Amino acid sequence: MPAIMKAIIITIGDELLIGQTVDTNSAWMGAELSNIGFDIIRKISIHDLRKDILEALAETAGKSEVVLITGGLGPTSDDITKQTICEFFGTRLIMNNEVLAMVTEMMKKRNFPVNENNRRQAEVPESCLVLKNEAGTAPGMWFEKDKAIFAFMPGVPYEMKYLMKEHVIPELKKRFTSQVIIHRNIMTYGAPEAKLAELLEGFESSLPSYIRLAYLPASGIIKLRLTGTGTDRKALDKAMEENVMKLYKIIPHLIFGENEEPFEVVTGNLLLERKQTICTAESCTGGNIAHLLTSVPGSSRYFIGSVVAYDNKVKENILGVPAEVISKYGAVSEEVARLMAEGARRIMGTDFAVATTGIAGPDGGTESKPVGTICIAVASAHGTVSEKHVYGNERIININRFSIAALSLARKQIIGQ
Amino acid sequence: MPAIMKAIIITIGDELLIGQTVDTNSAWMGAELSNIGFDIIRKISIHDLRKDILEALAETAGKSEVVLITGGLGPTSDDITKQTICEFFGTRLIMNNEVLAMVTEMMKKRNFPVNENNRRQAEVPESCLVLKNEAGTAPGMWFEKDKAIFAFMPGVPYEMKYLMKEHVIPELKKRFTSQVIIHRNIMTYGAPEAKLAELLEGFESSLPSYIRLAYLPASGIIKLRLTGTGTDRKALDKAMEENVMKLYKIIPHLIFGENEEPFEVVTGNLLLERKQTICTAESCTGGNIAHLLTSVPGSSRYFIGSVVAYDNKVKENILGVPAEVISKYGAVSEEVARLMAEGARRIMGTDFAVATTGIAGPDGGTESKPVGTICIAVASAHGTVSEKHVYGNERIININRFSIAALSLARKQIIGQ
Repeated sequence: MPAIMKAIIITIGDELLIGQTVDTNSAWMGAELSNIGFDIIRKISIHDLRKDILEALAETAGKSEVVLITGGLGPTSDDITKQTICEFFGTRLIMNNEVLAMVTEMMKKRNFPVNENNRRQAEVPESCLVLKNEAGTAPGMWFEKDKAIFAFMPGVPYEMKYLMKEHVIPELKKRFTSQVIIHRNIMTYGAPEAKLAELLEGFESSLPSYIRLAYLPASGIIKLRLTGTGTDRKALDKAMEENVMKLYKIIPHLIFGENEEPFEVVTGNLLLERKQTICTAESCTGGNIAHLLTSVPGSSRYFIGSVVAYDNKVKENILGVPAEVISKYGAVSEEVARLMAEGARRIMGTDFAVATTGIAGPDGGTESKPVGTICIAVASAHGTVSEKHVYGNERIININRFSIAALSLARKQIIGQ
Repeated sequence: MPAIMKAIIITIGDELLIGQTVDTNSAWMGAELSNIGFDIIRKISIHDLRKDILEALAETAGKSEVVLITGGLGPTSDDITKQTICEFFGTRLIMNNEVLAMVTEMMKKRNFPVNENNRRQAEVPESCLVLKNEAGTAPGMWFEKDKAIFAFMPGVPYEMKYLMKEHVIPELKKRFTSQVIIHRNIMTYGAPEAKLAELLEGFESSLPSYIRLAYLPASGIIKLRLTGTGTDRKALDKAMEENVMKLYKIIPHLIFGENEEPFEVVTGNLLLERKQTICTAESCTGGNIAHLLTSVPGSSRYFIGSVVAYDNKVKENILGVPAEVISKYGAVSEEVARLMAEGARRIMGTDFAVATTGIAGPDGGTESKPVGTICIAVASAHGTVSEKHVYGNERIININRFSIAALSLARKQIIGQ
């Protein structure tokens, strides 16, 4: 078995350390590297300081074949990365006319004049291979030193992704014949981690040594990740598939999808297959379910619209929920959720309508309906179903969990489960 | 000037390295530590492997006063952190009856039986101080070694936050007299980074050595972060305030808020002050503006509702946009945006209504209306205003930028700018 190629990701920027920016770059880069067979052994975030950058770069020596670095290449003067890079690789900054021409054209397109800051971005270390950045003004830089590759990219996610897709990933693929690493992700919903682990105890102990199982919980969803490592893709694929099939036998009622696909994608695909449509009527989720559904490209083929009925008057006037029902059962009740779903389905003419009404918090709870209470309903030609759940105290987490619970109920109705 | 206390954050988990989970924990922890005066010198993410954990813990020696570690403490068997911790600190796992009682009670509340996995969670290293976790089943652990503090917490964000707020932060505050570090964040919108840097060149060069300026761009918004360091809080506060005031003089038209407050919070506060209300009519943003507005606690005091009019029939039937206008100008037009806003305001009876119609992509663009085109309108008692912009090609980024542009226009209308 060949040694697995290793990679280290370094992200530079004070904003990452003091938590003003969440480091989504390294997650995305990790996924891309993992897909082409790299083992990401470490991610490091450091200050935009000469000493810290030099130290982090030096530490990678002998540890990995590839080091990807983002950040510190913006047009403003808080960025000292480029000078430090020159020091590390023993080179100097020179003006690159091709980059300058690109920057000039890009600024023209945006109707901004080229200034000194932009001009500085066209300066690159003399000894590097310049990676053209058509998504922004800061070029990427590729170095090789002591048998390791160093690729520097700006920290703006869109620009980093452009450079990764256009230059870094294709070049790495060319250079390294990959060890085969296959990830399979089985998405489950409806059982907490410890319960799931109990159900899967036998399965886990039956796994061959080259397949690992991990539990990744998030917002009530638990991803089961199987990671297989080997040299023969076909044999590994087969072994992975067999084990995934086993999972489907053990917990069929808990699996709702695969491959990182969230409920909005799974639900959307089901509607597409069936040529059916959906709409939402949302109180406490405030448009989040509509937002999730419409974050999927092509969702206009099945998503018709939504009424966010935050105020009771909207529930009454637009969705046609009788004021008497609201005052009798309360706005947060399965009765109101059902009428919201039916009203939305009626005015938008869809096959399915999902409704939510609840208390996201932090305020508004009562003894009988504490913060975290959610009533959801799904209306369709087969009638209306509803559920009531109680989750936690955090507003953002609640909105997310409410939305997932509603989409799960919708999925079940669509597949007739 | 006393030395600034240093901290290192270590997050453990394969899912972080292969990018299946974005590390939001370390960002949150970094912000908390920064607030109490720590300099977070490094964040590291590593595999859930004995060797890697031991190596990362050993590397912190002599570098920082505090090491915070999350992850690897879940109830499932992919977690080997606790055994490794014992090895590092030269201790062994013992059953903690108090923790076991808590776990048992928690599982009972959720109607799940206590199983072997849960019981294992109640085992803790003999030499540590146990940090009670009332938010979950895995306790936190506090060690002191070679003059450094090590605090281990589970990776579930909600549980980590509980332990940080209840135990770690209060204890660190007690132990260390803080160097004063003050951050001020000025939120700007409407000028790209290089342009802003040009406008602020004189300001930046006039800053005293103990105040740093950083540009943090995200989705069209650029945060200007001023970081001041000193020992006298009052003097530092005054100097920071003076410099913030200077910024307000130089770029008054670009500043929309402070302190990380996004447009939905700023807009919401303005409406609260004025006792006014808002609603949205969203096509391409698919409910995201409503979602943003309702993610703010207490938003029910000014947010009434939304009509997500993805399908043209919803624009016509619910918002009352005449079919002729849609066919004459196209659904993506300022004319339709204006009528959507006016229709929403009429049916929901609000002071302001924000409308969007555009092409988020990746498909659906034409030569005259490429992907990234957005028309936004805001209707109020003062009439209706509209704007048209063209952004980029990425759907999720576009939805976000469209929403921000719409909220910015709404804000301007609310303050009568």
